[in-house]
Amino acid sequence: MLSFDMIHAAGRTLRDVARKTDIIVAPGLAPACDLRLKTENLQRTGAFKIRGAYNKIASLGEAERAKGVVACSAGNHAQGVALAASRFGVNATLFLPLAAPISKIEATRRYGADIRLSEGVYDDAYEEAVAHARDTGAAFIHPFDDECVIAGQATVGTEIMEQFPDVDAVVVPVGGGGLVSGVAFAVKALNPKCAVYGVQAAGADSMARSFRRKEPFCADAVSTFADGIAVKIPGKLTKALCDQYVDDVVTVSDDETAAAILSMMETQKLVSEGAGAVAVAAVMFGKIAVGGKKVCAVVSGGNIDVNILSRVINRGLLKAGRLTSLTIELTDKPGQLMAVSALIAKEGANVIRVHYTPGGENMDINGCFLNISMETRDRDHLERIKTALRGAGFTMC
Amino acid sequence: MLSFDMIHAAGRTLRDVARKTDIIVAPGLAPACDLRLKTENLQRTGAFKIRGAYNKIASLGEAERAKGVVACSAGNHAQGVALAASRFGVNATLFLPLAAPISKIEATRRYGADIRLSEGVYDDAYEEAVAHARDTGAAFIHPFDDECVIAGQATVGTEIMEQFPDVDAVVVPVGGGGLVSGVAFAVKALNPKCAVYGVQAAGADSMARSFRRKEPFCADAVSTFADGIAVKIPGKLTKALCDQYVDDVVTVSDDETAAAILSMMETQKLVSEGAGAVAVAAVMFGKIAVGGKKVCAVVSGGNIDVNILSRVINRGLLKAGRLTSLTIELTDKPGQLMAVSALIAKEGANVIRVHYTPGGENMDINGCFLNISMETRDRDHLERIKTALRGAGFTMC
Repeated sequence: MLSFDMIHAAGRTLRDVARKTDIIVAPGLAPACDLRLKTENLQRTGAFKIRGAYNKIASLGEAERAKGVVACSAGNHAQGVALAASRFGVNATLFLPLAAPISKIEATRRYGADIRLSEGVYDDAYEEAVAHARDTGAAFIHPFDDECVIAGQATVGTEIMEQFPDVDAVVVPVGGGGLVSGVAFAVKALNPKCAVYGVQAAGADSMARSFRRKEPFCADAVSTFADGIAVKIPGKLTKALCDQYVDDVVTVSDDETAAAILSMMETQKLVSEGAGAVAVAAVMFGKIAVGGKKVCAVVSGGNIDVNILSRVINRGLLKAGRLTSLTIELTDKPGQLMAVSALIAKEGANVIRVHYTPGGENMDINGCFLNISMETRDRDHLERIKTALRGAGFTMC
Repeated sequence: MLSFDMIHAAGRTLRDVARKTDIIVAPGLAPACDLRLKTENLQRTGAFKIRGAYNKIASLGEAERAKGVVACSAGNHAQGVALAASRFGVNATLFLPLAAPISKIEATRRYGADIRLSEGVYDDAYEEAVAHARDTGAAFIHPFDDECVIAGQATVGTEIMEQFPDVDAVVVPVGGGGLVSGVAFAVKALNPKCAVYGVQAAGADSMARSFRRKEPFCADAVSTFADGIAVKIPGKLTKALCDQYVDDVVTVSDDETAAAILSMMETQKLVSEGAGAVAVAAVMFGKIAVGGKKVCAVVSGGNIDVNILSRVINRGLLKAGRLTSLTIELTDKPGQLMAVSALIAKEGANVIRVHYTPGGENMDINGCFLNISMETRDRDHLERIKTALRGAGFTMC
């Protein structure tokens, strides 16, 4: 049974391994409350997972450690186990799905772990890891459903209560539930009046659907770019702890998560991954009632592929009217491109890409399409440009 | 004359205003040394400038404050002055060049300052700000060449020595020299053996060229995307302090700065602006001799426009062979596009954009160009794809 003593002991065990990450004020993200961020994206390995993994390996006896450890993960848990094992001089074998981001695979390899790429998805990697543990006697380090792991993650909660003692609500990303169940247990032990909310991606909401129901909900499939919390079924231990200690579990859409990632980059100078941003997204988009409250959102990780990050930025800019692609119908005669360019230049937008293609079969034989991508200041600016184009007689599709 | 007492007093003045930003280990950035980052990009307003600005306004008498303050800046200093003035309930008038990034202008406006956009560049804004100070009696808050401002920035140095007492070398971005001269003074006062290095952008290297020469070097023009340190001439006070307390001033190219920004995002989860990344770039690219040493690089700010950040990411990916655009010569006959697509899919690259255009006058009349953009794992992966394409008989331009 998880106890506060176990969490306290985990804090001592982790003292020289896990960084006591800063809590940073975030006045620009959610003006209606006093929002601060527990920056576990700035943790070693880029996520909180090192806490649980190290605490678990520390709990093994010498004989167990000699047989090595094994785990499966699409990313952050793998890095946590790999670094923790290397600190103990223990062999680590890690099963990752072949589709795991190359950046996460390479980062895990750098910690000296033996990487096995499994054909298929996370569940296939899980099966192979369990089989490996059975065959070799290596200790299986579960990503969430293990009391030692949960006690390690719970140290995020004790740190929050120490660093931000008058906090009214703590908001935590939820995949399998290891972090939220540990944090909720710790927070409620120290201040039963402090609310604890879990947040899932709408496309991977098994804990939200399972919350305070008898049977855990098992999803057939999950669909979210927040790969770190794309879990089909909550843990047994974690579900029980959530039911008892968490106030509510809510969900956010991928677009809301992307907006939170972009806002954190712009106003907080922090890179977070999808899973790391869902708690902030829930506060930004009013999924929980925290108006006027002191709120701590856990930014649980920052291991996002820069390709994805680049897409998140572009999507956010498009949604905010700061990046636009207009397709304008032109008559294919001299001077048309110049007329459009002059108009856009006058309005102060910055053209970044132009395509000029012949029109389709329903158009006049001289018709063509001008597709023009540009940077604009905001939606108003974009609307002014469109109005000016229409005023000059141009048609946009 | 700057004194350690002034710096100590600034530390007390700033206690509840400036965050004591964390120093974070950065093992992945420069494996040859023990590099840690002083994260002033996580400072309020996204840069260290609040320290000097607040300390300066705190030094003014009631009668002076009643007349308001005025400053000119392309960004970070403006935000620092605006926030500091709002804390004292003082009117702030800020002159910004019209070309300043819209994000910095908006952020400054949000702190309640009166914004004046000057036609032209920074120097024009400076002239207007000085004229405004003369006409209205408002106190001019210089961005760097002022002892109170320097004493405020110097608290970055006292914090480094407290947080990382056995540091061997401190590396600091340099524009006008306010930060580096303050930090060098503080560091040398506390540990004369600790080296202090300044870093400038190669396209704005006036302090590097002026260093320990009689006459300060004044650049005709500056050219760098690190707008926060694009200064034409060092300050008088700051040059004298640099000459006395700084060990060396080196430069980095914009490409090196961009690589540092990308690496900090990927491995440290930190967003930095160009000016904020030059110290890290100098360590990463061996501009200073710090092998085996304990090194603290100051990440002085994170206020970068996301459009620019998106370009930095793309450029970094292109340079690392992780994003590629290939132009392939095809004969315009059925099945060619499929053959190329199949080959690329087999090699595991991810196609993100395709253009198919007719060939030029020197080509066969059936010739055409296929321009295909794709995400690849690294340079080796890219070379394997090129080799496969050549092996299948395709020609690339």
